[in-house]
Amino acid sequence: MEKRKDEVNGKIVFYNYKFNDTYVNTFLAYRDANQYRGQGPSRAAKYGAKAVIVRSMSHAADNNPHTGATRYDSAYEKIPAVAIGLRDADRLSKQIEESKVTVRMQTNGHFLPDTIGHNIIGELIGTQFPKEYITVGGHLDSWDNCEGAHDDGAGCVQTMEILRALKAIGYRPKHTIRFVLFANEENGLRGGNKYAEEAVAKNEKHILAIESDAGGFTPRALGLSGSDEQFQKFLGWKELIAPYGCTEFNKGGGGADIGPLSRALKTPTASLNPDSQRYFDIHHARSDVFEAVNKRELELGAVNMAALIYLVDKYGL
Amino acid sequence: MEKRKDEVNGKIVFYNYKFNDTYVNTFLAYRDANQYRGQGPSRAAKYGAKAVIVRSMSHAADNNPHTGATRYDSAYEKIPAVAIGLRDADRLSKQIEESKVTVRMQTNGHFLPDTIGHNIIGELIGTQFPKEYITVGGHLDSWDNCEGAHDDGAGCVQTMEILRALKAIGYRPKHTIRFVLFANEENGLRGGNKYAEEAVAKNEKHILAIESDAGGFTPRALGLSGSDEQFQKFLGWKELIAPYGCTEFNKGGGGADIGPLSRALKTPTASLNPDSQRYFDIHHARSDVFEAVNKRELELGAVNMAALIYLVDKYGL
Repeated sequence: MEKRKDEVNGKIVFYNYKFNDTYVNTFLAYRDANQYRGQGPSRAAKYGAKAVIVRSMSHAADNNPHTGATRYDSAYEKIPAVAIGLRDADRLSKQIEESKVTVRMQTNGHFLPDTIGHNIIGELIGTQFPKEYITVGGHLDSWDNCEGAHDDGAGCVQTMEILRALKAIGYRPKHTIRFVLFANEENGLRGGNKYAEEAVAKNEKHILAIESDAGGFTPRALGLSGSDEQFQKFLGWKELIAPYGCTEFNKGGGGADIGPLSRALKTPTASLNPDSQRYFDIHHARSDVFEAVNKRELELGAVNMAALIYLVDKYGL
Repeated sequence: MEKRKDEVNGKIVFYNYKFNDTYVNTFLAYRDANQYRGQGPSRAAKYGAKAVIVRSMSHAADNNPHTGATRYDSAYEKIPAVAIGLRDADRLSKQIEESKVTVRMQTNGHFLPDTIGHNIIGELIGTQFPKEYITVGGHLDSWDNCEGAHDDGAGCVQTMEILRALKAIGYRPKHTIRFVLFANEENGLRGGNKYAEEAVAKNEKHILAIESDAGGFTPRALGLSGSDEQFQKFLGWKELIAPYGCTEFNKGGGGADIGPLSRALKTPTASLNPDSQRYFDIHHARSDVFEAVNKRELELGAVNMAALIYLVDKYGL
């Protein structure tokens, strides 16, 4: 039940905000609910709360907790916060409504010191413009509680598959294509930041960066962030790519790892947008495993990205 | 390896035709490969073969046999035929290439006598045109080796969900909407035939029939078979329905169970066309189980069909 701010002092706060299933695009439901996990702990600490429990941001039928980033406001105490599964959240909610509940919380989460990580970069050197780059990538790390098969093993495998496929057909690109497995997306974006930093330091020219970081599900859309002119050119390729799955071409595209490059060099960025229905069943939960990835859906995603990369390499953007 | 017709006599014929994975729409790959299971046994019997083994029509990563209808030509001996999984087919193929293989086949398949089955029909009676019908349905039977959760439990549940949803919002349709769970689609289409027969006998007026029988996966397209005028009207609703998942409106739609109605009364027929990538992973195999159905994808399919039914009821077709 709802509580007033002045009732929070000394308590464990339970955010039971339900993932809004009326958003057909589940990423909108995620954005909508994200504030509770992201800012909720500090909001509660502000009013004297001792800890926070968050309902998982998912509409899965199982009871796995879905965890993720929390941004603490340094003005308030850094209180513990945990996510619980949907069945547990429903049960706890029912118990709270029926009677006074005592919750005892023990968390084992802790920070380890930083260590060295690496971006892994492969290149197909351009035949005409070797110093102009098209970047395609995903991120190599995953959230701590899962394999991260979809987030973002899928993007990594697709990146490698695009390289394999282009080599298999003997394609010699005009521009240099970089295949990048980014380090540390989940916890600081250091791989993406470093990649952009190096690009600036070396005065590189980047014509497109594309990322797959929304799961390895069946491809439905490609998105592009760029100038109006670039977007019109992109739209002109829709009929060529649609038969392979991406029947929608959206304004706005990119990814966390290529964001820094976009901000630093105004590089246009694109994203593969697969079907979103199953993503938050497994996102940042123990169910994000290899077995949940469908080989054919994964390959089709790579095919659609490869087609866009080919077109941009051949005809510019 | 390939054999000449005159080498088939007295042998077991192995059709190892691979499901063509270059068809993005997997139903085209199914149509392409279907002749081997469908007509292959009689084709082999014509040249004196004793039995047939067919490679499963699937690109699944597992080894489950995918079975289905075989149409025997009465001119030739009705020889036994079995389907084997993809791994087994690859192994057998390798063994045949490496050496002479002896295969011993024992099948336990047999026909049981016919029995009585039933179509299950619910109606929301029309307020203005109670004697004009919109039919929505799926089929209640499944192939013998599986639960048939997708084929066609999904269509049945969606049919019931549309009824539930229309009742939940208190919708009073102008026309009578019939919710039909058809009997015996897999083995003779007797439910669909009977439904059409009754419609003709009672001189019923049918304005649309829509079926879901392509799996309970994420909705991508609606298809319509009807006059050019009807198709144009249908196309005009695309922007209304697209936000819910069916971003493609295709020419041509229907389903096995509503086919007889279409042929008897020229009723326009529509189909829900969900994403096809996973369908032949599970089609007519033991893997077509409840756990392979995603609740949200299933519901979205029902939502898209409900929207079309609502529009046809309200504005005619």
